[in-house]
Amino acid sequence: MARRLFILDTIRTVFKKYGFQPLETPAMENLSTLTGKYGEEGDQLLFRILNSGDFLKETDPAVLTEKNSKKAAAQISEKGLRYDLTVPFARYVVMNQHELAMPFRRYQIQPVWRADRPQKGRYREFYQCDADVVGTDSLLCEAEIILMIKEVFEGLGLSDYQIKINHRDVLTGLAEMAGAQGKEGAFFVALDKLDKIGEEKVKEELATKGISGAGTDRVFDLLRSNATDLQTLKSLFTGAGQKGLSDLDQVFTLSGNIPQVQFDLSLARGLSYYTGCIFEVKVPSSGIGSVCGGGRYDNLTQAFGAKEKLSGVGISFGIDRIYDVLDILNLFRPDQERGTRILLCHFDEATRSHAFRLAVQLRTSGIATEVFPDVVKIKKELEYANKKSIPFAAIIGEEEMKTETITLKDLTSGQQEKVSLQDLIKKLNG
Amino acid sequence: MARRLFILDTIRTVFKKYGFQPLETPAMENLSTLTGKYGEEGDQLLFRILNSGDFLKETDPAVLTEKNSKKAAAQISEKGLRYDLTVPFARYVVMNQHELAMPFRRYQIQPVWRADRPQKGRYREFYQCDADVVGTDSLLCEAEIILMIKEVFEGLGLSDYQIKINHRDVLTGLAEMAGAQGKEGAFFVALDKLDKIGEEKVKEELATKGISGAGTDRVFDLLRSNATDLQTLKSLFTGAGQKGLSDLDQVFTLSGNIPQVQFDLSLARGLSYYTGCIFEVKVPSSGIGSVCGGGRYDNLTQAFGAKEKLSGVGISFGIDRIYDVLDILNLFRPDQERGTRILLCHFDEATRSHAFRLAVQLRTSGIATEVFPDVVKIKKELEYANKKSIPFAAIIGEEEMKTETITLKDLTSGQQEKVSLQDLIKKLNG
Repeated sequence: MARRLFILDTIRTVFKKYGFQPLETPAMENLSTLTGKYGEEGDQLLFRILNSGDFLKETDPAVLTEKNSKKAAAQISEKGLRYDLTVPFARYVVMNQHELAMPFRRYQIQPVWRADRPQKGRYREFYQCDADVVGTDSLLCEAEIILMIKEVFEGLGLSDYQIKINHRDVLTGLAEMAGAQGKEGAFFVALDKLDKIGEEKVKEELATKGISGAGTDRVFDLLRSNATDLQTLKSLFTGAGQKGLSDLDQVFTLSGNIPQVQFDLSLARGLSYYTGCIFEVKVPSSGIGSVCGGGRYDNLTQAFGAKEKLSGVGISFGIDRIYDVLDILNLFRPDQERGTRILLCHFDEATRSHAFRLAVQLRTSGIATEVFPDVVKIKKELEYANKKSIPFAAIIGEEEMKTETITLKDLTSGQQEKVSLQDLIKKLNG
Repeated sequence: MARRLFILDTIRTVFKKYGFQPLETPAMENLSTLTGKYGEEGDQLLFRILNSGDFLKETDPAVLTEKNSKKAAAQISEKGLRYDLTVPFARYVVMNQHELAMPFRRYQIQPVWRADRPQKGRYREFYQCDADVVGTDSLLCEAEIILMIKEVFEGLGLSDYQIKINHRDVLTGLAEMAGAQGKEGAFFVALDKLDKIGEEKVKEELATKGISGAGTDRVFDLLRSNATDLQTLKSLFTGAGQKGLSDLDQVFTLSGNIPQVQFDLSLARGLSYYTGCIFEVKVPSSGIGSVCGGGRYDNLTQAFGAKEKLSGVGISFGIDRIYDVLDILNLFRPDQERGTRILLCHFDEATRSHAFRLAVQLRTSGIATEVFPDVVKIKKELEYANKKSIPFAAIIGEEEMKTETITLKDLTSGQQEKVSLQDLIKKLNG
């Protein structure tokens, strides 16, 4: 938990610095808001809340006699737990469109729930952490997202990260080149697997959809060449692709051409959802997949009856995966967890009272301090400190009380020294 | 939301400084854990989650034919949303008793859900914010709670708060004095209303329970005298009460006899739950009831089959009420909300790009900065800043770009001045 809070605080600090306002929406949404937004499988993974009171009263008896769970669910349950943060956000924007300062920038860090079978790395309740700007199609927002990603990962102490970026229009250009007009969806889905299954398998999959031939081969030649020079690419696309490349050019320039940004022609993120830039962040040395992803869309609020199309761009940080990456790469540092810094140990009531007075002064200096509350053997007090990974212990005996000193024990090295309260505060705050 | 985060951050900072570890538990608990813990009314206010899949399959057909909602609920729903943080905490402690460093200090800030009819000041989802130490009966913990309350309210900018404190044993002593042995529950419930309904009504209520006479009168004489001198009181109690007064004496001394602490003989908090000290915090000038409460208990984990009794002491901050108090007393300050500090305004693509580069430098200095993303009329940009309560705007025109200056507009006073980037950073960080 303390480590998760460190990750969340790091991200929150960056979001704030870029003017994103915190938003929280209720855990329960109307099922009419939730259903139909995540496909049939998603609908089945929604947690439904049983209506309060005499919920069977108005149900159709036939539905109950038949034991038709699906129809019954619709009659005895009106609310469900949110499945992601995007749909509640879209609902919120549409409901408050006229009060919101547009463009509207919000971040939202809240748990979501999915009735998945629990398994390693997949939980029924997990946090999502999203930031979006809606109501503008300015590419400044894309550039800001890149800079935010950079600040977050640097704040987490990670240097070995890659921000992969592509553009829907470039993908459409590739589809045209491959002769996949009218089959863009299938083309993107297959392309998205390139990393995982390799060129041959993707080509096979495309062939079964009728996408093959010289054009398709030319696309793979291009992907294999790892071409990222925008001028070269511009000369290869005839129709679609030009706008995408020009957008990317601006985004790269605005964000300062940072080396972590990698233009990746094959990045598709499986979704027909995105309409502009597409982002994905990976930490290659961790062996873990994408830790962050997002992109530009223009259809967020359509499903909720908004009259105008609202263009927006968003990013979502995968908190659990980021946790795993930091854990695998051994990047959590004790000071990030910011638990108790020092335990004050004592021998009897008198030394305990003295320790308690010292604790007040340490806390006034901002140092997280505990006094072992009971009078017990010093061994037991130190065991507690170890179990809680507290880095320092102060031993307060009669001698220390008389001389106004503290015997400070570094519980990592085992070293001991006598210090004054002032020295102790300096040391622990340093 | 930004204001709520300020309150939560203030409390969290204090909890950490006293060595409390953050804990989060899942929103869903087994209904077997939740039911029977909050009385019959509480059980009816639980939100129940419909089992996944074909939930009707195994139900008793008779229950469905009868439309017996209560019996059906038990068959089609195994989980519910947490109703408070205490029961999930107790469940967690019992499940992890052997791994936890004892005494165990945890804080927990999470929403809870109650199927109440929504009304002003009562929400179906609201935050609770609890800190508890279990596994010790040391009075140091009570003293720490008092100091924590002091730090929290001072951190919130509130000086006019009262920490009322009493002790279960003192209440038992009063019950003895009133001749209410064997009817302590009724006595405490009536006493708890003294503030609201006054002495006469409480006496009437007690009389209906057969509690009256000279002893009862003596109790009210004592309450009316507002006696708080521990020595005087010690001489009045014959049996129960002595230990309570001695505990309170120690707690007052340990916490440094701070003037905000008021011993209140009539404080009962309605609960038979508490076994030692009882706390309540009020902000009299706000006209709002208790904003924080807690006390010592020794039966937290019994309901979950723990073998040993675990004594503990806890405190719960009422976030929504604290919000209302700060709002009523006009104590929220813009800097506490820590939203965007400055909006950079521009006139065309060139000045926008320049503004974007300035924003990078401002953010590097830790200043929450926005650049209006689209090229629009300056009026529209300033309207956005006003709507979002951004305190400063920078006007970046061609002139400013050439001279490397910034026209800074204070949106509260309307005053304008030309400054350098360095001056701007100093001013906004000051």
